[in-house]
Amino acid sequence: MELVCPVFNDLSFTPRVVLELASDTKEEAITWLLSRIRDTQYNGGTELLVEQLGPGADAQEKENPNMFLVGATWQRLLSGAEDLGLFKEFNDGSMRAFTCANKYNFKDFKGDGDSFLSTAECQYIIKHELDTLRAKDETHVPGLSRVKLYPGKSVIRRLLSKGILIQVFPLHEKEELKRLSFAWYKKVKLSFQPLEDIRHYYGEGQALYFGFLEYFTFALVPMALIGVPYYLFDWEDYDKYVIFASFNLVWCTVILELWKRCSSSLAYRWGTLSRKKAFEEPRPGFHGVLGFNPVTGRQEPLYPNAKRQLRVYLVSLPFVLLCLYLSLYVMMIYFLMEGWALSVHDAEPTFWTGILCFIPSVLYAVVIEIMNLIYRYAAEFLTEWENHRLESSYQNHLVLKVLVFNFFNCFASLFYIAFVMQDMVLLRQSLATLLITSQILNQLMEAFLPYWLQRRRNKKMVRKIHKGKTLEDQELPLANQVRLEADMSTYLGTFDDYLELFLLFGYVSLFSCVYPLAAVLVVLNNITEVYSDAFKMCRVFKRPFSDPAANIGVWQLAFEAMSVIAVVTNCSLIGMSPQVKAYFPDSDMQLILWTVAIEHGLLAFKFILTFLIPDVPKHIQINLSRLEFESREALKKKVKSDNTVASTQNVA
Amino acid sequence: MELVCPVFNDLSFTPRVVLELASDTKEEAITWLLSRIRDTQYNGGTELLVEQLGPGADAQEKENPNMFLVGATWQRLLSGAEDLGLFKEFNDGSMRAFTCANKYNFKDFKGDGDSFLSTAECQYIIKHELDTLRAKDETHVPGLSRVKLYPGKSVIRRLLSKGILIQVFPLHEKEELKRLSFAWYKKVKLSFQPLEDIRHYYGEGQALYFGFLEYFTFALVPMALIGVPYYLFDWEDYDKYVIFASFNLVWCTVILELWKRCSSSLAYRWGTLSRKKAFEEPRPGFHGVLGFNPVTGRQEPLYPNAKRQLRVYLVSLPFVLLCLYLSLYVMMIYFLMEGWALSVHDAEPTFWTGILCFIPSVLYAVVIEIMNLIYRYAAEFLTEWENHRLESSYQNHLVLKVLVFNFFNCFASLFYIAFVMQDMVLLRQSLATLLITSQILNQLMEAFLPYWLQRRRNKKMVRKIHKGKTLEDQELPLANQVRLEADMSTYLGTFDDYLELFLLFGYVSLFSCVYPLAAVLVVLNNITEVYSDAFKMCRVFKRPFSDPAANIGVWQLAFEAMSVIAVVTNCSLIGMSPQVKAYFPDSDMQLILWTVAIEHGLLAFKFILTFLIPDVPKHIQINLSRLEFESREALKKKVKSDNTVASTQNVA
Repeated sequence: MELVCPVFNDLSFTPRVVLELASDTKEEAITWLLSRIRDTQYNGGTELLVEQLGPGADAQEKENPNMFLVGATWQRLLSGAEDLGLFKEFNDGSMRAFTCANKYNFKDFKGDGDSFLSTAECQYIIKHELDTLRAKDETHVPGLSRVKLYPGKSVIRRLLSKGILIQVFPLHEKEELKRLSFAWYKKVKLSFQPLEDIRHYYGEGQALYFGFLEYFTFALVPMALIGVPYYLFDWEDYDKYVIFASFNLVWCTVILELWKRCSSSLAYRWGTLSRKKAFEEPRPGFHGVLGFNPVTGRQEPLYPNAKRQLRVYLVSLPFVLLCLYLSLYVMMIYFLMEGWALSVHDAEPTFWTGILCFIPSVLYAVVIEIMNLIYRYAAEFLTEWENHRLESSYQNHLVLKVLVFNFFNCFASLFYIAFVMQDMVLLRQSLATLLITSQILNQLMEAFLPYWLQRRRNKKMVRKIHKGKTLEDQELPLANQVRLEADMSTYLGTFDDYLELFLLFGYVSLFSCVYPLAAVLVVLNNITEVYSDAFKMCRVFKRPFSDPAANIGVWQLAFEAMSVIAVVTNCSLIGMSPQVKAYFPDSDMQLILWTVAIEHGLLAFKFILTFLIPDVPKHIQINLSRLEFESREALKKKVKSDNTVASTQNVA
Repeated sequence: MELVCPVFNDLSFTPRVVLELASDTKEEAITWLLSRIRDTQYNGGTELLVEQLGPGADAQEKENPNMFLVGATWQRLLSGAEDLGLFKEFNDGSMRAFTCANKYNFKDFKGDGDSFLSTAECQYIIKHELDTLRAKDETHVPGLSRVKLYPGKSVIRRLLSKGILIQVFPLHEKEELKRLSFAWYKKVKLSFQPLEDIRHYYGEGQALYFGFLEYFTFALVPMALIGVPYYLFDWEDYDKYVIFASFNLVWCTVILELWKRCSSSLAYRWGTLSRKKAFEEPRPGFHGVLGFNPVTGRQEPLYPNAKRQLRVYLVSLPFVLLCLYLSLYVMMIYFLMEGWALSVHDAEPTFWTGILCFIPSVLYAVVIEIMNLIYRYAAEFLTEWENHRLESSYQNHLVLKVLVFNFFNCFASLFYIAFVMQDMVLLRQSLATLLITSQILNQLMEAFLPYWLQRRRNKKMVRKIHKGKTLEDQELPLANQVRLEADMSTYLGTFDDYLELFLLFGYVSLFSCVYPLAAVLVVLNNITEVYSDAFKMCRVFKRPFSDPAANIGVWQLAFEAMSVIAVVTNCSLIGMSPQVKAYFPDSDMQLILWTVAIEHGLLAFKFILTFLIPDVPKHIQINLSRLEFESREALKKKVKSDNTVASTQNVA
């Protein structure tokens, strides 16, 4: 019952994943790799199907011949799903770990070649199986003596880290993608995103990002609605922001708590909430002295934790602090230049001095962008050098580094204006400028530039084959389609998307009381963001492997930290408002003491609230504990019947 | 291979647990209960051994005849241990859930009647089995139509809540107890407590309490050592406390973090760290409309959560706030009286006015004690009325209520003196008075009063039997021993002990910079506390059932909350010190702003520290994940071999 798509009919199986080896790889190594992939699981292989990709129509000399298509039988995919502990919907509506023995009790399981597993799941299974293809007693890859192996080493990861394997990527599914993109961004109508379809096609990690983006947009709507009349009627009344700031305070705590519940509902529905993560392999770049992992007992490189900590605390931390200091320094120069330009303009206002006034901010913006870019490379280099064993820990350290610096770059000048210069008019101007320019720049850099590049590449490929016909959705032969996708840019994960949302959240929660239109701008930005992100996922990038995430991970923490900072900032802004100052005409000290006291009370209240609102909705908790209870009862029954058998045997 | 103690030789089994039924319980009900207990597990019984206790030597008319001794065969205890998922040490040194099939692979498992299970574990198993003795299709207890039952209801809990079953308690083990008490408090020497023996005899919950007490005492030693020279040389130099306060800040954060690691080490060694808690039964007093539990599917009373929340937020919370207000009110009256007494004394100092000066504080102390007592009853009543389903949630709500009130009563006056009156001399005096008096009172009320009562009871019993001989460790016949223990006071759990430590921790962490001798006093108090607590556990109270706790639960949170308050308090004290004020001679505002900024920095640092220090030491984490990994690999192998069998069959 193999489901074979019509375009792929020169193959005996549905291709799922592409392996691209370096074009100069020796024949011997390729033969060995293919035979290891095809070998039975009993012999330590993966039992996957793999075929070399033929040359495309109108093949050229410089084309890489070493492209391989990987697929699997349905039987193999199902046993892989069981291996991974994938959760699927059971007949009774609950989510349970899939097992082959029980397969007919799962909803939607009909035959063997049905749509039980989504394409993203199939690709994820194949990737996992490829990743866990381990060396047996080879000391190196046959024909490539420089690619050392040791028993238990993941072959694919070693090939990747040595540059023999250029890339592994999953294939797009034209039909599904067309349906998805139609439902997602081609209809212009007011509706929710098709999260289920996104999850189906891109996996849970992507779907959670888009879910969060949507949630965040809706959460901003009340704020935007309140902001508009403020903007319209109190335009010059900067001291009316007390109520708005108080609203801000409550809002940013509550939406983050509710998002946790929302996210766990989604993760429960998608079966990632209670799924246990498999034991994490070391990341490809990890190196160290060969030894035995104390957990698995397998051979793998070991790197002493103390050494890593030394690198983190003695090199990376001082480096980050130095960069922050530099960023502050640049900021101070900017303010000096701005002051100087203003004084020149005030002394003798001409057209040229008017233009001179703009130069500092433009320069500052450019310098900030350059600094961000350089810092990003430095952070990646440093985090790589820290030599983290796990991809997750690498990511966390990278996120932390980039986050702190970006936060500083974006907000330091605003804090300076707000609390040192105490100039609310300037604060509002800067905020508006920052928000609007960053928004426009982002959309351009993120989606339209890559799209334009991709479009050129596409056209070239189509023209090459059809000799002048430029129909865009013309179907390409498999070989050309694969090569086209291999040339697409690689999607580097949700990092930058979350970072952007994080900074937007910062603008709104920290300072929107000063510039009530901020929420409106962010809502508008988010709406276009949905479209541009959807567009770039579907049209610009290679399909990414799905990532069965249960939550937004370290970003939840980052947003919560921001909301704590927001409480402190808003309290200070309230304390500084002329409205509040009027209550304490005699004593500034009284005012400050009261502000601090109320701020502490609010922080305490915030923590109590975090504590009181359960992270998982009641009904999901009940479902989870019912499953837990059932499995425990079943185990107990088994134990008891075993005992009865044993004691009967004893008696006999 | 039954191990029968010599004193118990009129019984065919070792008695572990005593059931005391009301003396007027109908014969029919007793017969039914005993047959249900003795019935096989297959028939829904517990398969435990149970015998009526005979009359004691020199039995009196008024003795309750309905005392029953419960025990079990070794086979039954082992299967019970498996049922409960008890963790024991495996041959390779790791802790694993005990299973009968694997029993010979566990360390110390030798035969059947060996010392593999401690007496505390045996008693815990029997208690669990009794608790899970469920009604089948009885609608009421035979002979007692008012004691309603429904299928699945725990018989023992219903009998307890209806007062038919007066008490269930485990028996002391004279020999073991003698050894334990000798090692624990009879030797006066500088050594650690025998935590392993305590855990063996009283279970993990008690052992953790004593472990925490010991840890806390040691943690205080550096502070006490610093405190002594401060006290000796800077007696009148109240403004030298900045360094001490800074030390305080770091200290209280670090010791709590380290305790978490310490506690998880202990819990790992005792096998409670990774043990999963069994599904919790509703507590005996819980009532509601009969329905089906959504998790277990069993019949049990249901009570809507919304109703409980209403009771908590609309009745209990306002009540607590009212009590706090009252407490504040009483405090203000005290300060007024004190001021008045002082003014009288100052105007015309005589002997009588000198005594008059003491009257307000004595009165206040008495009123506080009375208020605490009344409030405690009220809190218990309210929490009972909130109708919590689980004992743990009942305990949490009770702890929270009592904690907040006690905190207020103890510290409100100190805060008032420190921050409103800003009188450091008075603060030091009050602190010293409070610490010393509460210490003396506590030791008296906690250990010596109950001991004195118990001693009288003991003597009466011994005199009754031996007619005048008063040798204290004379061995009593079993029947008399059981009756003697039944009359002992019941140990009400570690609540009050932790509460005392919590308040002591408060005195030290909040204000010890003002009165550096506080740490010394608390250390002394803790040393006597160890002895008096040990003494009361061994001699005064009934043996408690063991409680397989993995940590100190809600108290960890309470101590952490206190340490946050300590940071704020210490920062304010530092900010108020003349030493620091000297740096800002012109502007109070600058001083406050700096203080607040530093305080925020410290709080942030504290949270980062909490985040950075892992709660579980590395080697234990590795052990845990190795066990996890092994069990997962075993499961995978099983799945694969099953699949191979299945596919072979398919082929055939």
